[in-house]
Amino acid sequence: MIRFLLSAVLVIPGISAAQQPVDFVRPMIGTARMGHTYPGATVPFGMVQLSPDTDTIPYEMNGQYNPDVYKFCAGYQYSDATITGFSHTHFSGTGHSDLGDFLIMPTTGPLQLNPGTAAHPESGYRSRFSHDRESAEAGYYKVMLDDYQVQAELTATNRVGLHRYTFPASDQSHIILDLTAGIYNYANKNVWTFVRVENDTLITGYRQTSGWARTRTLYFAMTFSKPFKKYGHRNDENNVYKGFYRKFDQTADFPEMAGRRITAWFDFDTKAGGQVQVKMALSPVSTEGALRNLQAEAPGWDFDAVRRKAREAWNGELSKVQVTALSDDDLINFYTALYHAYLGPTTYMDVDGAYRGLDQVNHRAEGYTNYTTFSLWDTYRALHPLFNILQPARNADMIRSMLAHYDQSVHKMLPVWSHHANENWCMIGYHSVSVIADAIMKGNIRGYDAMQALEACAQTARYKKYDGLEYYMKMGYVPEDKNSSSVSKTLEYAYDDWCIAQVAQKLGRKDLYDEFIARSRNYRNVFDPSTGFMRPRLSSGAFRPAFDVLSTHGQGYIEGNAWNYSLYVPQYPDDLIALGGGKKRFTAHLDSLFTMHLPDAFFAETEDITRDGIIGNYVHGNEPAHHAAYLYNWSGAPWKTQERVRMILEKMYKPAPDGLGGNDDCGQMSAWYLFSALGFYPVCPGSTEYALGSPAIKSAVIRLENGRTLTIEAPGQSRANVYVKTVTLNGRKLDRPAISHGEIMQGGKLVFQMTNRPSH
Amino acid sequence: MIRFLLSAVLVIPGISAAQQPVDFVRPMIGTARMGHTYPGATVPFGMVQLSPDTDTIPYEMNGQYNPDVYKFCAGYQYSDATITGFSHTHFSGTGHSDLGDFLIMPTTGPLQLNPGTAAHPESGYRSRFSHDRESAEAGYYKVMLDDYQVQAELTATNRVGLHRYTFPASDQSHIILDLTAGIYNYANKNVWTFVRVENDTLITGYRQTSGWARTRTLYFAMTFSKPFKKYGHRNDENNVYKGFYRKFDQTADFPEMAGRRITAWFDFDTKAGGQVQVKMALSPVSTEGALRNLQAEAPGWDFDAVRRKAREAWNGELSKVQVTALSDDDLINFYTALYHAYLGPTTYMDVDGAYRGLDQVNHRAEGYTNYTTFSLWDTYRALHPLFNILQPARNADMIRSMLAHYDQSVHKMLPVWSHHANENWCMIGYHSVSVIADAIMKGNIRGYDAMQALEACAQTARYKKYDGLEYYMKMGYVPEDKNSSSVSKTLEYAYDDWCIAQVAQKLGRKDLYDEFIARSRNYRNVFDPSTGFMRPRLSSGAFRPAFDVLSTHGQGYIEGNAWNYSLYVPQYPDDLIALGGGKKRFTAHLDSLFTMHLPDAFFAETEDITRDGIIGNYVHGNEPAHHAAYLYNWSGAPWKTQERVRMILEKMYKPAPDGLGGNDDCGQMSAWYLFSALGFYPVCPGSTEYALGSPAIKSAVIRLENGRTLTIEAPGQSRANVYVKTVTLNGRKLDRPAISHGEIMQGGKLVFQMTNRPSH
Repeated sequence: MIRFLLSAVLVIPGISAAQQPVDFVRPMIGTARMGHTYPGATVPFGMVQLSPDTDTIPYEMNGQYNPDVYKFCAGYQYSDATITGFSHTHFSGTGHSDLGDFLIMPTTGPLQLNPGTAAHPESGYRSRFSHDRESAEAGYYKVMLDDYQVQAELTATNRVGLHRYTFPASDQSHIILDLTAGIYNYANKNVWTFVRVENDTLITGYRQTSGWARTRTLYFAMTFSKPFKKYGHRNDENNVYKGFYRKFDQTADFPEMAGRRITAWFDFDTKAGGQVQVKMALSPVSTEGALRNLQAEAPGWDFDAVRRKAREAWNGELSKVQVTALSDDDLINFYTALYHAYLGPTTYMDVDGAYRGLDQVNHRAEGYTNYTTFSLWDTYRALHPLFNILQPARNADMIRSMLAHYDQSVHKMLPVWSHHANENWCMIGYHSVSVIADAIMKGNIRGYDAMQALEACAQTARYKKYDGLEYYMKMGYVPEDKNSSSVSKTLEYAYDDWCIAQVAQKLGRKDLYDEFIARSRNYRNVFDPSTGFMRPRLSSGAFRPAFDVLSTHGQGYIEGNAWNYSLYVPQYPDDLIALGGGKKRFTAHLDSLFTMHLPDAFFAETEDITRDGIIGNYVHGNEPAHHAAYLYNWSGAPWKTQERVRMILEKMYKPAPDGLGGNDDCGQMSAWYLFSALGFYPVCPGSTEYALGSPAIKSAVIRLENGRTLTIEAPGQSRANVYVKTVTLNGRKLDRPAISHGEIMQGGKLVFQMTNRPSH
Repeated sequence: MIRFLLSAVLVIPGISAAQQPVDFVRPMIGTARMGHTYPGATVPFGMVQLSPDTDTIPYEMNGQYNPDVYKFCAGYQYSDATITGFSHTHFSGTGHSDLGDFLIMPTTGPLQLNPGTAAHPESGYRSRFSHDRESAEAGYYKVMLDDYQVQAELTATNRVGLHRYTFPASDQSHIILDLTAGIYNYANKNVWTFVRVENDTLITGYRQTSGWARTRTLYFAMTFSKPFKKYGHRNDENNVYKGFYRKFDQTADFPEMAGRRITAWFDFDTKAGGQVQVKMALSPVSTEGALRNLQAEAPGWDFDAVRRKAREAWNGELSKVQVTALSDDDLINFYTALYHAYLGPTTYMDVDGAYRGLDQVNHRAEGYTNYTTFSLWDTYRALHPLFNILQPARNADMIRSMLAHYDQSVHKMLPVWSHHANENWCMIGYHSVSVIADAIMKGNIRGYDAMQALEACAQTARYKKYDGLEYYMKMGYVPEDKNSSSVSKTLEYAYDDWCIAQVAQKLGRKDLYDEFIARSRNYRNVFDPSTGFMRPRLSSGAFRPAFDVLSTHGQGYIEGNAWNYSLYVPQYPDDLIALGGGKKRFTAHLDSLFTMHLPDAFFAETEDITRDGIIGNYVHGNEPAHHAAYLYNWSGAPWKTQERVRMILEKMYKPAPDGLGGNDDCGQMSAWYLFSALGFYPVCPGSTEYALGSPAIKSAVIRLENGRTLTIEAPGQSRANVYVKTVTLNGRKLDRPAISHGEIMQGGKLVFQMTNRPSH
């Protein structure tokens, strides 16, 4: 565990000494190894994620996928010793990637336009740095670029990234804007880039890429706090048609740059300690929109005021949950998880509501905030349910954004995994329907029509060409010989279909209820009684003979093996237990999951999983079994849920750069932490019930958007007292290990009496 | 001369037998050899130019420029035996190219997605055709595609191209949309293309290219008159990142296509004689805009009505000049020239005024039509002056479009050669200022502010980085050792500067007048008294020793040799004559120009010029000496002007596919014809005077936009009577060989008394 430095940022000069929730945020958590979080500056749900990138290695090497690229999903890898620059868009916690737009790097000395290599940083514009001279807090990041003795500071508004560079004395100070840089870059990824030097302080342009998002364009407007003395660019592209542009020397002082491999530079004279600030505004629709965003959000040059405002924005959001805990580390874990949960979905519209739609047409969001970055396979599980409690207005806007996506979809599908006006089709299922069902069932219907949303869900679930869905609809399961990961798909479709049925029932659409409730039982079609596991089935109807319950490769699953995935029937846990041979046998099965010892070979062949992210054979680093620990509640052993949950909280979340047991997955891992630490978890989003677990906090006061307050208390809380003796809600004892959404939103006091003895 | 077929289209069934001006239009004129006109369907100044392409050869072969591509500047070459398809955008008469967007080809039989080769048309989707089964008229084109027995008919509105395909009986009828096709295509030209199959009759998308226009995107919306039964596409691109799109079989029935090498196909069952119509609407801003244009201009499926409307639009414009002539061939030449003159500049905005600006931002033209396709080095000479008489309102809108370009220009320059939101910088000079000055001096100021226009002109003329302009401003000439084609540039800058000075004087801006009238005399700095020619000068101040007055290569000129270009002082013809040794010597010099015999070597080394386009050493196929024949008026020999003009009209314009002596150059060649045939010519645009020549028509009645009528009569007209005895305006004899713009716009009667005897 990497511990150094984390407490150093606790004392923030010039800001109140009294500790606020924001003081416990450590953006560095998850930046080492596989957390894939980024340490840079952003505001809650902000469009800009301005953060250092430590390398720009290509997605492919010699035409082959380069597995090392995975380390850089968020641009930054804690163990690296060099920084290539600061780019403005990053995903938080993904296991595939894109973005890294508009990389800016300040340098001094001879101009270098290549990033150089980590082994030989002097071969390019990158700089060495040390964590000793680096710090990160919510909305602010600072680092000393050792090779240039330039101190870089970053902060952000929603749509504008602000850089403050403090230079040494130099008549060769440069600011590089490298449009060839990007995350998960490869040869053809840059489709086009365009830069206009509007005047000696204002630059506009765009970057158009084809990657995870196939057809993506992001626009910018960038200003310097002082005029550059000279500028230019290199277009590092062979075979470019120059035409009559040959008239000009385009390399220097030529104000229009266009091409696929543009690296621009701007030169300044700087005195010792002289500062050059840069503001970079983004827009999904135009440079004009970016300029408007710049004017609206960051018209001046008071970097510290913007930093303060970002911090206040964070503190305002975080303070809605006031927690006391057993230690500062617990507070750090909690508030950093809340911080990570609020990094996305991200705002995707200009200040005037303009955004680019999935149809590549510019639209305007009327009366709501349009969001993007929907990693729904991950986030439907706990993040959106969390929003239904803590951010219901935003969650409703996210649903409006999903419905807009649907309206613009030529496939007539709700988003699967969408970002920046694109559907990247990543992972499986159609879990938008879960997010929508969860909101509708919990009464969070605002700004959208529930019946229309239901129609969109049904239509989505019927798009035959999608991922084996035609077979699923015809045969009741996805046959593995027709479509891989067939078990995972069958199980998740069945769950999603149950969600649709719930909404149909609520809205009185018996036709749809009948259609989808029948589909919701399809998990039974892949259950193999002979092994007790869900198992890939062939189009012949037979189970596939070859079957390895530990492997995740070619076994009918994705991001999980049969042990983990076979538990995925959140809609019918009782039936799952019945299939598993009854409560006792099922409890023993779950015990095995959490305690068995896996061979080293398992890890060698499994991407994305290390021993850090696993307890026994329970994989917490991926999502499919996130609800598993709570299933003991149904098998008659809630005390085991309590025990396991506390163990997972302890083992998988640590206040350190390498403190996350797997990708944070756009907040899903953090949302699991938050729910579980508060004492309950949405095992089946789309139902209105939460399973009770074992809170890890001492107390929490949640200010709900409806004006009510929910207080959670855990008297007797300690590291040893992980068991819950009784739970009372407003003095009334809860007679089963569950609480409803209605009860939570009513507010009041939820008391978990903690003990060191399990209640058998 | 290729004569066949041209009269075949004279009789148009179903349309009035009485001959209208539109009946004399032969779109085939100029389609052979170097005319570079296109035969397809368009309306006056229309955004759509829907026309057959006879080949799609690449701009480069093995990394080298492929000179054969030049033949296909307009997509169609009359001598070809195959058609590759029908694309929607074409330049008329250019000597470099781009466009050819959205090529559509109907085929039958096995699906082929490559065009194949001219030598082996069966190797691809192209078809053989014959001029016997082809016809073209204003707004309509028809051809039988012999290989498929599909009859193709084309017509157009301003923004919509309409196709009517009559198929044989086939269950393998295809319509191919090849987004990889284009004019002047090369490996990297397609930046991105995108297609959405919205439903079984509606397709939208765009094509983004980098070519002559460096950063160009054109959007479309396309509908079929009947649903296709199946569709699909091929993406013929290596190394494309597929990501999670791998889930889908994208080749067939997958409704979103994106990439750089997309060829889409749509399948139909057809009965014998069954028709499939296609409408393709264009937009410079979005697919949404294209759909709006489609709805506004071509909502139904009445092809014949659209064809009729296009024909009426043409006839309406052409009929404003009612001409009688010595023969039908003369009428064909005249009205085809007028047709060619009205092919551009082209409309560049949606029906709601939305267009993409040079700054790549979407703008809206408020209260005017925004135009593009400004080939200004050509068209400032006679085309825009022609518009100041025949199309003053449109010309004012063109100026507003140029001023919008200026406002959006990061260089702060008026257009040099602009098309589709791009400046391609083709050719030399800054001749927007001539167009603007000509309009302002002639009082055609509407919808724009003359003073602002003057400022734009002055600012343009001071952009130091442009083409030797910094040297020109400092030294009074462009030094050949610093910037090639230095004499041409110096001469044209000096002329343009004179234009600015005229406007400055008119608007009372003495500062600007002084600045630019001084510059207007810079032609003197490249006059070499020892040879009597303009001659390249070095930065040392010395003339360059090596000097070949016939060559056009590396001699300080572009598209003209010293003989032709040395005459280019339209602003001061008297001084030019004085430099040339006085009137007598100058007349003799002009005589030599028109009569000398050039060696064969001249043609071998000179691109763009054949003996067809030249009289003696006078090159009419290129523009620099277009005013030369009129200079006799100043040297005391107007009768020689009359004689030469009639000879040029006769030799350079013939009613045949190969009837044009050079590129029509976006209407400049045709505008020369029109002016000269009417009896006068704007030797120096920016002045308000026209030089009188020798009319070739018998009479002309011009309905002016101001409601007045100008009647031109040429009593005594005959092939032999090329000399003008007297000219009277409203009975008053004109005492010098000139007429003013004011006199023309007053209307009345201009009578040229023709004779076979020169008036010495």
